[in-house]
Amino acid sequence: MESIDLLIRARWIIPIEPAGTILDNHAVAVDGGRIIAVLPAAAAAERFAPRRETTLDRHVLLPGLVNLHCHAAMTLLRGLADDTPLMTWLQEHIWPAEGRHVSAEFVHDGTLLACAEMLRGGITCFNDMYFFPEAAARAVATSGMRAVIGLPLLEFPTNYAADADDYLAKGLAARDALRDQPLLHFALAPHAPYTVSNRSFERIVTLTGELDLPVHLHVHETQAEIDESLRSYGMRPLERLRRLGVVGPNLIAVHAVHLDPGEIALLAAEGASVAHCPTSNLKLASGIAPVTAMLAQGVNVGIGTDGAASNNRLDLFTEMRLAALLAKGASGDARAMNAHQALHAATLGGARALGLDREIGSLVAGKSADLCAVSLDDPALAPCYAPESHMVYVAGRENVSHVWVAGQMMLENHTLSGFLKKDLENLAAIWQTRICPRAHQS
Amino acid sequence: MESIDLLIRARWIIPIEPAGTILDNHAVAVDGGRIIAVLPAAAAAERFAPRRETTLDRHVLLPGLVNLHCHAAMTLLRGLADDTPLMTWLQEHIWPAEGRHVSAEFVHDGTLLACAEMLRGGITCFNDMYFFPEAAARAVATSGMRAVIGLPLLEFPTNYAADADDYLAKGLAARDALRDQPLLHFALAPHAPYTVSNRSFERIVTLTGELDLPVHLHVHETQAEIDESLRSYGMRPLERLRRLGVVGPNLIAVHAVHLDPGEIALLAAEGASVAHCPTSNLKLASGIAPVTAMLAQGVNVGIGTDGAASNNRLDLFTEMRLAALLAKGASGDARAMNAHQALHAATLGGARALGLDREIGSLVAGKSADLCAVSLDDPALAPCYAPESHMVYVAGRENVSHVWVAGQMMLENHTLSGFLKKDLENLAAIWQTRICPRAHQS
Repeated sequence: MESIDLLIRARWIIPIEPAGTILDNHAVAVDGGRIIAVLPAAAAAERFAPRRETTLDRHVLLPGLVNLHCHAAMTLLRGLADDTPLMTWLQEHIWPAEGRHVSAEFVHDGTLLACAEMLRGGITCFNDMYFFPEAAARAVATSGMRAVIGLPLLEFPTNYAADADDYLAKGLAARDALRDQPLLHFALAPHAPYTVSNRSFERIVTLTGELDLPVHLHVHETQAEIDESLRSYGMRPLERLRRLGVVGPNLIAVHAVHLDPGEIALLAAEGASVAHCPTSNLKLASGIAPVTAMLAQGVNVGIGTDGAASNNRLDLFTEMRLAALLAKGASGDARAMNAHQALHAATLGGARALGLDREIGSLVAGKSADLCAVSLDDPALAPCYAPESHMVYVAGRENVSHVWVAGQMMLENHTLSGFLKKDLENLAAIWQTRICPRAHQS
Repeated sequence: MESIDLLIRARWIIPIEPAGTILDNHAVAVDGGRIIAVLPAAAAAERFAPRRETTLDRHVLLPGLVNLHCHAAMTLLRGLADDTPLMTWLQEHIWPAEGRHVSAEFVHDGTLLACAEMLRGGITCFNDMYFFPEAAARAVATSGMRAVIGLPLLEFPTNYAADADDYLAKGLAARDALRDQPLLHFALAPHAPYTVSNRSFERIVTLTGELDLPVHLHVHETQAEIDESLRSYGMRPLERLRRLGVVGPNLIAVHAVHLDPGEIALLAAEGASVAHCPTSNLKLASGIAPVTAMLAQGVNVGIGTDGAASNNRLDLFTEMRLAALLAKGASGDARAMNAHQALHAATLGGARALGLDREIGSLVAGKSADLCAVSLDDPALAPCYAPESHMVYVAGRENVSHVWVAGQMMLENHTLSGFLKKDLENLAAIWQTRICPRAHQS
């Protein structure tokens, strides 16, 4: 018998690859934080002597979900000015609030609140873009989850940095200081084509080549952004990015709502990825990304929640469901983005975009044991004819019962280990009072 | 001091009318199943001596939600054939399964499962359309919730009835047998323009006039339905219905996805209502209903889940959120269907469509005490700057903590009274085995 750290038996396992596989009464064997085998439960009983066991007899076990676009600290601005047009929302509400309040403390506290919310909903890894990335990284390390910390770059000064050089210097210093944390990864995070100069994009391209980091970038979120680029540069933003060498396998094009067929073909040919954020795109009235065409062309698609100021849930179950539904409604084809494709986008698609597909995103021997379990022990989930479809169209994040990151159990029977709920609520209450002292006064 | 049955104190109350009102530390006084006052908690303490009290100090109290379109018994077919085009889905999966399995027992059991799911999610009243309405009514009565039972009408034979006359006779007999049940209401439920003849619509119009019942009817769900009507009748379905006298204040036009501006104006002028079912319309690739234009023209809009075979959650929180988001994405205006409008549609809009707006839909003295409370005691809901917006964009049905129907507490601290969870699960398991013995075998 092989001695191992952990054996998780589950009624069903959806390993994500091979596509469409649903394993019945199987087990995942974990040792040293890694998956060493996925095999029938009966065979596991004969082969392994686990130090810990978990039996999930009414559950579906999945890879931990990957949130491909987030501004985690913005939980503190959740619902600050809903039902407001984008520019009013940014100029009159979000930017002024950020100007008054954003600090290392704000980012740490907001990110901690975000980590708790995401872990409880089955998200084990998120791709973050915000100021004070070292403060975000500290919160992530406290939470025990995995994240890709974006090193932000903008041309204009904020509470965090003075100019493009300052952003980059601070970001790279943060990365150097945090390189020994095994669950922290890094990306270059130039904000958007309309806030980053050609010169800065050239530096990004050089750094990407040297460091092999993903480039986490908002692209073609709104028609206005495209119109402005046509006026300023005489070309659409993606064409400008292509000429600058930004479009390649390291690019994570966030939103990508407004793409023409040539642009979809370009992303596919260059091996770039898209972070699809359906709630945010609807809520800010940006539009509906052409995900069906992207998938048909072979673009790698992941799913993001965006920040809690424009969503307002950091909930990939809601996003998977919306992505699958919206693809059908927008394309007129009920087969568009089927349940497997939605689950793939929320796991392996996200992992691949982040360059982490050898590490996470599917349940395969050798990968890190980043897992989530969904309990079907709920009359609202009964009956269940097709577990994969149930994960997308029926289950909600409230049904996530267990979460592991690198083999460490983070959520057990719906309860987070580590986090103290009261502390998080106090923290949110303190910031709420600072940000909007008169909230709730009608 | 006035002696009353129940006093509910809540941190916030959203009474729905007057529009936009948010009451801080108020109370709802209930006696004989009715709201007798909504007043500041301090004033309530001086005026009332309640026999029971509930204090909801971190909650938002709302009217119970009204699900304006449901085929409740179809919970038993939840997720049977997802990601399938409409006609394949109906002809190869849903209709054959219904042909084999639908009976009074199926309808009773499926409806009971639906009632449990809906009550737990804050829905206190639903508008149902299915076969064997007396079996549905029996399940509703067992559950203790409120429903409008549709008396179905189709031209073709099913397990329930042989022809249009048989459907109507059976439906009206069921209504006569159940008229003394205070929480049961009735509607005429001709299925759709493409399954009901002119002669039958004429009978519906006569009966509506005599009995003052709502007419619960699928209308303009798909473009194909409109094309077929143009071929068969030389006019669009709504024009045919208008000529037949069906379009009036009693009409609940379900779906109404494909409407031209003249049709929106017609519905507004005639005082008809629309049951907007955004998830179902996306999932079956029917399209996106022009809700923003309907609201602008003054059409009364409610929200429905549709049946669990095409949704697959009977969850009005998900539907409210999707309705508000989709209106923005489809109209290009982030102000479209704001949080108040979404909440109104899911409560008073639905009540008005059903002719029940003097009885339910808002928290006003004299109405029935049909209420739901949403707990904000969850870090994923923090901070909270605007309770109304939080109900639509942040909260999920998992946050519903308390539900009352006509002053009777149905849900207390997230736990259903009355229903035995095990019984419901056994019931779902029995039907699952009957309907698809090999489900889950991969």
